[in-house]
Amino acid sequence: MISVGIIGGSGYTGKKLIQFCNIHKEISSYKVYGSKTAGETVHSLFPDFVGITKNIAIESVDNIDLDLDVYFIALPHGEALKYVPKLVGNGKKVIDLGGDYRLDFEELYIDWYKFTHTSSYLLKSKLYGLADIVPQEKYNNVNLIANPGCYPTATLLSLLPFITNFAEDILTVSTVAYSGTSGAGKSAKSEYLLTEMAGNARAYNVNKHRHQPEILQALYKQGFHSPFSFTTHLLPAAVGIYATSSVHLKEKADINKITDAYQAVYENSKFVRLREVPPQLSWVTGTNFCDINISVEGSTLIITSAIDNLIKGAAGQAIQNMNKLYGWDEGLGLITKEVESVSVCQ
Amino acid sequence: MISVGIIGGSGYTGKKLIQFCNIHKEISSYKVYGSKTAGETVHSLFPDFVGITKNIAIESVDNIDLDLDVYFIALPHGEALKYVPKLVGNGKKVIDLGGDYRLDFEELYIDWYKFTHTSSYLLKSKLYGLADIVPQEKYNNVNLIANPGCYPTATLLSLLPFITNFAEDILTVSTVAYSGTSGAGKSAKSEYLLTEMAGNARAYNVNKHRHQPEILQALYKQGFHSPFSFTTHLLPAAVGIYATSSVHLKEKADINKITDAYQAVYENSKFVRLREVPPQLSWVTGTNFCDINISVEGSTLIITSAIDNLIKGAAGQAIQNMNKLYGWDEGLGLITKEVESVSVCQ
Amino acid sequence: MISVGIIGGSGYTGKKLIQFCNIHKEISSYKVYGSKTAGETVHSLFPDFVGITKNIAIESVDNIDLDLDVYFIALPHGEALKYVPKLVGNGKKVIDLGGDYRLDFEELYIDWYKFTHTSSYLLKSKLYGLADIVPQEKYNNVNLIANPGCYPTATLLSLLPFITNFAEDILTVSTVAYSGTSGAGKSAKSEYLLTEMAGNARAYNVNKHRHQPEILQALYKQGFHSPFSFTTHLLPAAVGIYATSSVHLKEKADINKITDAYQAVYENSKFVRLREVPPQLSWVTGTNFCDINISVEGSTLIITSAIDNLIKGAAGQAIQNMNKLYGWDEGLGLITKEVESVSVCQ
Amino acid sequence: MISVGIIGGSGYTGKKLIQFCNIHKEISSYKVYGSKTAGETVHSLFPDFVGITKNIAIESVDNIDLDLDVYFIALPHGEALKYVPKLVGNGKKVIDLGGDYRLDFEELYIDWYKFTHTSSYLLKSKLYGLADIVPQEKYNNVNLIANPGCYPTATLLSLLPFITNFAEDILTVSTVAYSGTSGAGKSAKSEYLLTEMAGNARAYNVNKHRHQPEILQALYKQGFHSPFSFTTHLLPAAVGIYATSSVHLKEKADINKITDAYQAVYENSKFVRLREVPPQLSWVTGTNFCDINISVEGSTLIITSAIDNLIKGAAGQAIQNMNKLYGWDEGLGLITKEVESVSVCQ
Repeated sequence: MISVGIIGGSGYTGKKLIQFCNIHKEISSYKVYGSKTAGETVHSLFPDFVGITKNIAIESVDNIDLDLDVYFIALPHGEALKYVPKLVGNGKKVIDLGGDYRLDFEELYIDWYKFTHTSSYLLKSKLYGLADIVPQEKYNNVNLIANPGCYPTATLLSLLPFITNFAEDILTVSTVAYSGTSGAGKSAKSEYLLTEMAGNARAYNVNKHRHQPEILQALYKQGFHSPFSFTTHLLPAAVGIYATSSVHLKEKADINKITDAYQAVYENSKFVRLREVPPQLSWVTGTNFCDINISVEGSTLIITSAIDNLIKGAAGQAIQNMNKLYGWDEGLGLITKEVESVSVCQ
Repeated sequence: MISVGIIGGSGYTGKKLIQFCNIHKEISSYKVYGSKTAGETVHSLFPDFVGITKNIAIESVDNIDLDLDVYFIALPHGEALKYVPKLVGNGKKVIDLGGDYRLDFEELYIDWYKFTHTSSYLLKSKLYGLADIVPQEKYNNVNLIANPGCYPTATLLSLLPFITNFAEDILTVSTVAYSGTSGAGKSAKSEYLLTEMAGNARAYNVNKHRHQPEILQALYKQGFHSPFSFTTHLLPAAVGIYATSSVHLKEKADINKITDAYQAVYENSKFVRLREVPPQLSWVTGTNFCDINISVEGSTLIITSAIDNLIKGAAGQAIQNMNKLYGWDEGLGLITKEVESVSVCQ
Repeated sequence: MISVGIIGGSGYTGKKLIQFCNIHKEISSYKVYGSKTAGETVHSLFPDFVGITKNIAIESVDNIDLDLDVYFIALPHGEALKYVPKLVGNGKKVIDLGGDYRLDFEELYIDWYKFTHTSSYLLKSKLYGLADIVPQEKYNNVNLIANPGCYPTATLLSLLPFITNFAEDILTVSTVAYSGTSGAGKSAKSEYLLTEMAGNARAYNVNKHRHQPEILQALYKQGFHSPFSFTTHLLPAAVGIYATSSVHLKEKADINKITDAYQAVYENSKFVRLREVPPQLSWVTGTNFCDINISVEGSTLIITSAIDNLIKGAAGQAIQNMNKLYGWDEGLGLITKEVESVSVCQ
Repeated sequence: MISVGIIGGSGYTGKKLIQFCNIHKEISSYKVYGSKTAGETVHSLFPDFVGITKNIAIESVDNIDLDLDVYFIALPHGEALKYVPKLVGNGKKVIDLGGDYRLDFEELYIDWYKFTHTSSYLLKSKLYGLADIVPQEKYNNVNLIANPGCYPTATLLSLLPFITNFAEDILTVSTVAYSGTSGAGKSAKSEYLLTEMAGNARAYNVNKHRHQPEILQALYKQGFHSPFSFTTHLLPAAVGIYATSSVHLKEKADINKITDAYQAVYENSKFVRLREVPPQLSWVTGTNFCDINISVEGSTLIITSAIDNLIKGAAGQAIQNMNKLYGWDEGLGLITKEVESVSVCQ
């Protein structure tokens, strides 16, 4: 059993991490670190956790203990840089849920994140933890995992099996994704008020979303070299991402070959469910699943996928990455079938 | 370990029962019975259960096996009458989640439910299973449990500690409750379409709701004899009940005595959380909790309570009743603290 | 035709005022004043007004022109005090949509609003403009109208006809009201994010809401002297108030007399619609209507009412008050029947 | 002034037609025809119209008067075939809001609508009434207008100015559109219950939506011959369509030329608003506007557009078409600026 530190425990992602760590059978203890919330307790921050989780104090990020085994970092972009080098330098396992180590090249950080990377030597050694795709053996001797972004998780899990096998056949790929407002975090901005967002929808950060280079980086590694666009939207819902990728091919698609390619990747997958109809977002919210459907018509492929942005797109995948890091069942603490132990329900 | 039958497994309540039974450590097997849905499977009915629950067939209500230990009945009002006498007669344990056995007097069924009761002899022997109030010893030798209605659960848990101790001091009690649309079930009616209900709210069944005699019956047993009103509303949300009881007293209230009365009832409660501020509905949705706040000003008491109508108000309380029927930990299969086993999360 | 000043034009209420003033046939011109938003334009603040309203500049509240005819004030509580005395002193007509002049006694401001009133001499001369109840002749020679609060509008319109006629018969009155989140204004607070409020509901300011003394003041004037409680809640919707008043009587109610009392008050009303069933909130959102239903059972009266909090509960009633102040048709600029002029649409 | 018949007045679109006809200055009278709802009245069907519209009786579609001037048809697909030939044959003006006459070729009806067209001779003579694009002179001597579908309206208004000018430069176009649930109509299906759709989203009719041939037909006429895909989704909202078109070009786009092309088409448009940022759906709901934004990055064009599906995508555009048919101001009854007549409010 291990001990865990959750750095940045007061946001929506941190909350989910606390919930998952609280019931994980291989975690003997966990600490939670915050900045503004230091001095509060888990129950004062999250009253719904009374009777569910332990009520430990939120400790200060200025005094992070160095004697824990694994550290989850759930901080705004640019903040993880302050902690990761020291933790990794002390031989700790670190799973960063932000974007500070996802990209491979430091130049990209200046362009997309508007900061100069101060520990770029870690960009190459980190593992990009797309947990349902990365094989178990890649986790050996890894100290730093960059947990994928929410949109990249939904997009890459649904595109990679195709790209890997059919990159040469592609004319263009256009991904349109919608996210619930929890993706914008817990800090208050008028534009995310229920008064503004109920019954509303809108595109944002068009051609400028930081998740775009993250997605492209993964696609390029699989030989993709076609035009790609990625457009993000807000959904009038709290939780979830729905991604629709329109793929135009040079020739008529062979549905059987395509299906085989997805089956080959996911047939033993615990968390990716291939669907015969487009998934409903409600099928995955509250879970670590990613549901995917492929619809083919002539030379057009419409691939839809759905995830919970806070679980599969953040805290759930982070736990899954921890499980793989230690060689445990990757579903530990995330799901239970039949008469076993832990359920993630709605 | 026991075997379980879920009769009426295709509605919202039946779905929750399947989910809870699937992970319950003391349930070795369960069967699901439906009428129109017989022949389908759990996964075809509930695609989100793929990878979460077993995919058993829905069997016909016309062929209910008599060799199981406990039967949950989640049928429309009047339907349980067809099955309960036979099951009880065969020595089975039955937990009815409908209203067919909740009232003590058969006359009330004609007035409120518009049917003539055909097994009224069971009305006296049944246990009204308000699980967070009924003491463990009352479950001995019980064969039939009438699982309380959703509104009565929210209302009675929040009122009974007061009524029991201060019935004589009361001038009037007025309960106003709002429910999510899942309370209206899964059958399609235009009035419950998202198009109609988004941004909407309305009172319904004013002075005519079947849960009113159920609540009064329980209040009267505690010596209540003051004017009472109960008004139900629809909330533009899928899940949850929020009940607000305005209690006018003959004299100035003594907050300390009142608080003591609630503490005495709930201090060791696993699922009732007394709150210092009015609860948020979101604190309890997805859980078996009932959160309660008491606010006193002069001779006025405002008591607010919140539950998940499908869990604490139906399937969750039914599981809790089963746990108490067998003398197990009442939280089994419903909650886990720290490094134990089962989590009920949002 | 008149000229109008809108002081505080950047919030939800100010926005509605601009919309109504823009189409009002008796308003020749209007100016909008803001503090932080001074320098912006109506179209930059409200992009949805492009092509609908004029795009005038937001001027500074520090330089309010004194040559306009009527001033609407839509500022946070306590702010109107800065402007009203000077405007009234200059012989202007002022309609204050905030609470600064609603109460009759300055002592109440210290208790409920936590400020010392600096122009209490106006509290007596102001007209409390509950427009659907106050007769036309009361508007003669009025300079200052305190526009009623949103909750008081919904509550008083539904209670006053009863209280006025049957005060002696009442045991207790308990009003429970739910409001959309727009009632909390446009300033950003985490608790009103869609992420927090979707699927949520909660009571707030229990026994402490500033609208309580405002309601009681009006009830007392009609001879009411029974116990009263008033409990406010948030609804997971942007717009609207739904108020449910549970009235317990000393004896069995006479439904005919009660109905007659309401008919007498509202039979020629343009904006109050008496309903045979409880109103739906969606029937009134986007309009200046108040829909009311009275349900009687024995000695219990359940009165439900619904309004749009930003229109009937604020800007719409303010326009109606202006219309009455000038002796115009009270529906001018608010509604059109058949082939006339202004539409009330969704 | 003219007389109008609304055939199919009980659905969401019919309701909007009644509302618009009720205030239209050039409509002297209107009748409403229904099938199941014949015998009811406008107020019994739509209680929110009390005090807003006249309360005329719903007459039977079996007895449609032939002495009116214009007929709006808001019936399910395939139903208009029963009425249009006779009405047109009698020299009446007909505006069909369904799909029965939108496509130019009868073969397409068999493929996409699954019926054999019985008045295909009208397919050529009808005007496809994309009102913000079709020039006024095309309305001369027109008897039958096929009112465009909701998705085609949002898609074509945003794509046509580009396609018309730059068809040769296009590699692929992929449109992803989300609609509120009102698009599915008022008939009750479980899948559109608030309980199912709150917090939900999903793609549907992938590669099979009837609006696809309608869109392509219009694009082809402008010289478009590149791969196109069109994917429809449900939004957890009642009203509105948000369409996002990802256009990949053969070479780097020239933003100035593109902007000029849109300006040329829409600079005098009453209802199309070109936006510098992606529109919000809430900017257009309740109005007849279509808001459009074009974002260019390299050789990628992201075009977003938003409409109210029931107004601009149905009843509003139908009124606009009527206005153009008679040579009136196309905004008559739909919008008012400054001190004129009709307001479009939220």
